[in-house]
Amino acid sequence: MSGNTIGTLFCVTNFGESHGPAIGCVIDGCPPGMALSEADIQIELDRRRPGTSKFVTQRNEPDTVEILSGVYEGKTTGTPIALLIRNTDQRSKDYGNILQTFRPGHADYTYWQKFGIRDPRGGGRSSARLTAPTVAAGAVARKWLKEKFGTTFRGCMTQIGEQVIPFESWDHVPHNPFFAPVADVSALEDYMNALRKSGDSCGACIRVTATGMPVGLGEPLYDRLDADIAHAMMGLNAVKGVEIGAGFASVADKGSTHGDSLTPEGFAANKAGGVLGGISTGQDLEVAIAIKPTSSILIPRESIDTTGAATEVITKGRHDPCVGIRATPIAEALLALVVMDHALRHRAQCGDVVLPTPDIAAVGRG
Amino acid sequence: MSGNTIGTLFCVTNFGESHGPAIGCVIDGCPPGMALSEADIQIELDRRRPGTSKFVTQRNEPDTVEILSGVYEGKTTGTPIALLIRNTDQRSKDYGNILQTFRPGHADYTYWQKFGIRDPRGGGRSSARLTAPTVAAGAVARKWLKEKFGTTFRGCMTQIGEQVIPFESWDHVPHNPFFAPVADVSALEDYMNALRKSGDSCGACIRVTATGMPVGLGEPLYDRLDADIAHAMMGLNAVKGVEIGAGFASVADKGSTHGDSLTPEGFAANKAGGVLGGISTGQDLEVAIAIKPTSSILIPRESIDTTGAATEVITKGRHDPCVGIRATPIAEALLALVVMDHALRHRAQCGDVVLPTPDIAAVGRG
Amino acid sequence: MSGNTIGTLFCVTNFGESHGPAIGCVIDGCPPGMALSEADIQIELDRRRPGTSKFVTQRNEPDTVEILSGVYEGKTTGTPIALLIRNTDQRSKDYGNILQTFRPGHADYTYWQKFGIRDPRGGGRSSARLTAPTVAAGAVARKWLKEKFGTTFRGCMTQIGEQVIPFESWDHVPHNPFFAPVADVSALEDYMNALRKSGDSCGACIRVTATGMPVGLGEPLYDRLDADIAHAMMGLNAVKGVEIGAGFASVADKGSTHGDSLTPEGFAANKAGGVLGGISTGQDLEVAIAIKPTSSILIPRESIDTTGAATEVITKGRHDPCVGIRATPIAEALLALVVMDHALRHRAQCGDVVLPTPDIAAVGRG
Amino acid sequence: MSGNTIGTLFCVTNFGESHGPAIGCVIDGCPPGMALSEADIQIELDRRRPGTSKFVTQRNEPDTVEILSGVYEGKTTGTPIALLIRNTDQRSKDYGNILQTFRPGHADYTYWQKFGIRDPRGGGRSSARLTAPTVAAGAVARKWLKEKFGTTFRGCMTQIGEQVIPFESWDHVPHNPFFAPVADVSALEDYMNALRKSGDSCGACIRVTATGMPVGLGEPLYDRLDADIAHAMMGLNAVKGVEIGAGFASVADKGSTHGDSLTPEGFAANKAGGVLGGISTGQDLEVAIAIKPTSSILIPRESIDTTGAATEVITKGRHDPCVGIRATPIAEALLALVVMDHALRHRAQCGDVVLPTPDIAAVGRG
Repeated sequence: MSGNTIGTLFCVTNFGESHGPAIGCVIDGCPPGMALSEADIQIELDRRRPGTSKFVTQRNEPDTVEILSGVYEGKTTGTPIALLIRNTDQRSKDYGNILQTFRPGHADYTYWQKFGIRDPRGGGRSSARLTAPTVAAGAVARKWLKEKFGTTFRGCMTQIGEQVIPFESWDHVPHNPFFAPVADVSALEDYMNALRKSGDSCGACIRVTATGMPVGLGEPLYDRLDADIAHAMMGLNAVKGVEIGAGFASVADKGSTHGDSLTPEGFAANKAGGVLGGISTGQDLEVAIAIKPTSSILIPRESIDTTGAATEVITKGRHDPCVGIRATPIAEALLALVVMDHALRHRAQCGDVVLPTPDIAAVGRG
Repeated sequence: MSGNTIGTLFCVTNFGESHGPAIGCVIDGCPPGMALSEADIQIELDRRRPGTSKFVTQRNEPDTVEILSGVYEGKTTGTPIALLIRNTDQRSKDYGNILQTFRPGHADYTYWQKFGIRDPRGGGRSSARLTAPTVAAGAVARKWLKEKFGTTFRGCMTQIGEQVIPFESWDHVPHNPFFAPVADVSALEDYMNALRKSGDSCGACIRVTATGMPVGLGEPLYDRLDADIAHAMMGLNAVKGVEIGAGFASVADKGSTHGDSLTPEGFAANKAGGVLGGISTGQDLEVAIAIKPTSSILIPRESIDTTGAATEVITKGRHDPCVGIRATPIAEALLALVVMDHALRHRAQCGDVVLPTPDIAAVGRG
Repeated sequence: MSGNTIGTLFCVTNFGESHGPAIGCVIDGCPPGMALSEADIQIELDRRRPGTSKFVTQRNEPDTVEILSGVYEGKTTGTPIALLIRNTDQRSKDYGNILQTFRPGHADYTYWQKFGIRDPRGGGRSSARLTAPTVAAGAVARKWLKEKFGTTFRGCMTQIGEQVIPFESWDHVPHNPFFAPVADVSALEDYMNALRKSGDSCGACIRVTATGMPVGLGEPLYDRLDADIAHAMMGLNAVKGVEIGAGFASVADKGSTHGDSLTPEGFAANKAGGVLGGISTGQDLEVAIAIKPTSSILIPRESIDTTGAATEVITKGRHDPCVGIRATPIAEALLALVVMDHALRHRAQCGDVVLPTPDIAAVGRG
Repeated sequence: MSGNTIGTLFCVTNFGESHGPAIGCVIDGCPPGMALSEADIQIELDRRRPGTSKFVTQRNEPDTVEILSGVYEGKTTGTPIALLIRNTDQRSKDYGNILQTFRPGHADYTYWQKFGIRDPRGGGRSSARLTAPTVAAGAVARKWLKEKFGTTFRGCMTQIGEQVIPFESWDHVPHNPFFAPVADVSALEDYMNALRKSGDSCGACIRVTATGMPVGLGEPLYDRLDADIAHAMMGLNAVKGVEIGAGFASVADKGSTHGDSLTPEGFAANKAGGVLGGISTGQDLEVAIAIKPTSSILIPRESIDTTGAATEVITKGRHDPCVGIRATPIAEALLALVVMDHALRHRAQCGDVVLPTPDIAAVGRG
């Protein structure tokens, strides 16, 4: 209940600071008997790892995960799975100055107000580095959901700064550092090179989906599936907006064209984004998130110090000029965690998923 | 944990169906010693009550609230506050046909898939009527927050269908049925009259704010203040998008202009919407939500029945042509519930709020 | 999380005060599709109802339950089940004197210290009357467990004051006001008559069991099945001790005789009380609880008033001379609630219960 | 919610297996600004460490704790505190035989039934080794409670097997391996030597207390302070009974002598054990627990194998002949965790503890 746990039945408790000894998480509630190894998790961690292109932070972290518990002879035992990632590329420096000032748009100020103390090293707990344990936990959820229901998750970048990225194909996503669904990313590279040169940063828009969804996941009120997705996504660093399905475009739509028709062959459209009344329809989940520009930039900003006096702040060091670039695998992981949690919640109350006939949702999937 | 409770310390458990005997909620965790009467709650219920204009459902419900517990001689005792609202204007009719078909865009289909059974009377539990207990609980939270911190909540409509509504003044909001911040709502009336005549429905965009916010509310990871706001808002019927502060407009912004500068007189702007790193800055909370068009319309829609055969659905009865019209007080209540919960969570871990000097947030407020 | 909810998946939130308008509860998480009527619940409420013999409080409460939600056409819908019991026999009197003094052994003092305010009418929230909603919720759990697994719950009194009650047969339990498993209760009647005449009160010891238990319920650490049973039982008014299986007698036992042997025909004994390592074995659950003497008595007691001055307290009014007399159905209900919750938790993580062969637990049951 | 977390606001999530790579826990919700070092925790771990006398398991584990997060420059930051203890003295051997049979009185059977898989190495997750993280977390709670309220915790053994141990003085407790409050433990040594020679095991009874308690901790219903104490204690390996205050002796007591009188100088007695109506009185908490004999013994026991065939089980290896010997610091830690959690819960709802006058509880303390 104390804020650093996500999920009610598939519970992930996240710990660590950017430059502390280690980061990690404990997963409680994983079903027993699933094959699981470090390699299953490492593959997802490697997708969000820093230092993989010149457009992301140059911090060099292998992010090697160690399974400390909950697995015996390669299978989950149903007991908590603790995952540990040692921090290896912390740089010691004088943080005295940073401790005295607040970066505009950064958590510096609010941590200081809330706790009266903060770990300034690399942003401490507010660092995007803490998304690594989320990705690791997400890998476990993804494996179970894929084996159980065939559910898969994928995402891509749809906008970076002012550059709207058209959707060409999912096939392009793994082949460029932006997770962009286009064959030619030279325009994006040019944009980011100019941005880096200017010392500035920009935002991004990410789309995430789940395919092969079970029907019936989500609670009627408050803990709706879409509500928990919004919670997970808005809880990700720098996210300022979340949409499900048609999102804000729904406002100007009419009821006669908005509601997805049902036909004997399945749903005729997916403006709902896979959720009706807070419960999954079996169609693809469709989620979009808006990520604000990184607040740590080389351009001087007007600020104050802890005495309230005016000062100027410049953030040197290793930072992502667009945190959205590495956000795709993180958003996928968060979506998987929410679906996993609701799959277990559903099973608790309603038993194993048995689809009524006609399985119109199945027809309408994909 | 079973889905119908919002909040972890100020816990509101909602119950009821649209045409069952009663709806209501239990509030657990309210601080003791606060003056509280039914009138304090009724005033907010009356703001979201149906039947108050020709643009909303004509169901005639006084929504009279009864306090069943937790108050002694006009003061809260710290024990659970149960609130009861009897349903009075249920209409009996034959629901056989409704039970066999699914309205496009409605929860009919997902409830049937999830539970294998559903209460079809007026939408059962998926009805927007279930927002009344939320509003009632919100009234209790609002009273405590106002007395304790001076925090107040207000909202308005910023768009209805294709009609973007300019912000003129908060003063206009109580004086028209749309909660619109404009003096002249004749254009909105014309738009809605035409829509009603066509038997169709439309969406809306609502803005909600909190003023007089304490600093330091929210958890660093997962249960961030903005994450819990997104959870609450996306959990409201028909909401498809949530933004905090600049929202999706952040994407095309630059770091050098996006991060709100700090000055000795306070924050110079509020693109963050009052939250940095998941924790309140003390500035106003700024939230926007997108509401989709009502799915219950008089225009025939293509659908199927429970055997999977094609059919046509028309929804007669009393429905809101735009559920967004009554959404403003509900969204205010949800925002209050989230702030209240985090105020108690903050006090648990960090003790009573004591602002460090300089109180730059206070300066920047409003 | 705020203290008045029991269960994590089958969540029962209890509200009300002894002399307020009503008491009741909301059950969230009940599986859908189960037949349920007020009669199913009333039968259990009638077992713990006051005024049924001269040995219990003479307050005359029919304790009529109304189902407000969660049931449609006689079946649970999977949505919250709200249960309402109106208080009908409240007596108005001057509570001024009671408010100024503290009964020794009563919650008067601690409520006043905790909340700074308390409802003095009939003990307010600390009254044993608040066990009625627990019994009502337990009836729902009992019905589901019986239909699903054949699990049944029963209890009896094993000691009242100094009178140890030998176990003769379960058959006698329904035929006397003590829930005593003996044919002849004249000794108990004599004991209680003498006690009532003296104006004093006494304690009791209650045994509760579950038969037809599923195997594998309970979590390894902290939320063990026995831990949650202890939580539920010690949370009942006036309970000062809880034992599982051999209980305190285990201390002087040896490992060579204590551990229940396993044979091809099942367990050879049940000193464990049906729980090993926090998880159910499939044998009967065996629980014993100690209940202290009622603190509201006619004999004057030394106390103080709210100014700290010495005073004398006598409690007039209608009180149970032994709250243990009506405790049996309450303890059964609590045990059922814990088993129900763990049945759903088990299903969430491990799927529907499928017994491995050999089903030695089944053989050893009963 | 998934079973391996204790506490709702001071949340401790425990992970690990006896012979896995490591054990540990994550503490979420610790107040910020408290000085904390590994030494503060190690001192408590050393009290429950194995291998310290010939009467406990000879497994040689230094149980060195590493703080992975949540502390910056020697102070808690309010973010999760992850504690890691590497397992160092695991012995590899063939567990094939153990995997096929079930020790009577052991969790072998129930884990196999629940999860369909179990880690047999040293008892896996059911090992008493998993109490080490609990003790570590308890050390953090103890430090905060001592600094904040002056609350301290201590415990002692009151019975081992048939040997009842008289209470002489707390001063003796640290000076013998039994945590016995007597100067001369030769009788206990003789008893244990004979027991060890016979290859058998025995139970124990432990008393734990808290002194300097704040008034008003605990919730009225269900999550009462005594209920949560019972949950914590019964959740400890091998515990079969829990008593608060007079415990089972209350049954034969009378109301006129049982309820603790209040006087201007404070409570005249403490039969309540420091809790009335589920809420702390400010008097000492008094708790007693019964621990059953260790199930892993050298004497052959009748059992079955996984095919259901009869077999005989002897448990070789390193085991405690009486797990109660090391239970005292563990029970103290659990009591501290419960008090800590309720201190934060109280602060959330009622604000910082302010004692009303007259502070009769303070007078009656100690």
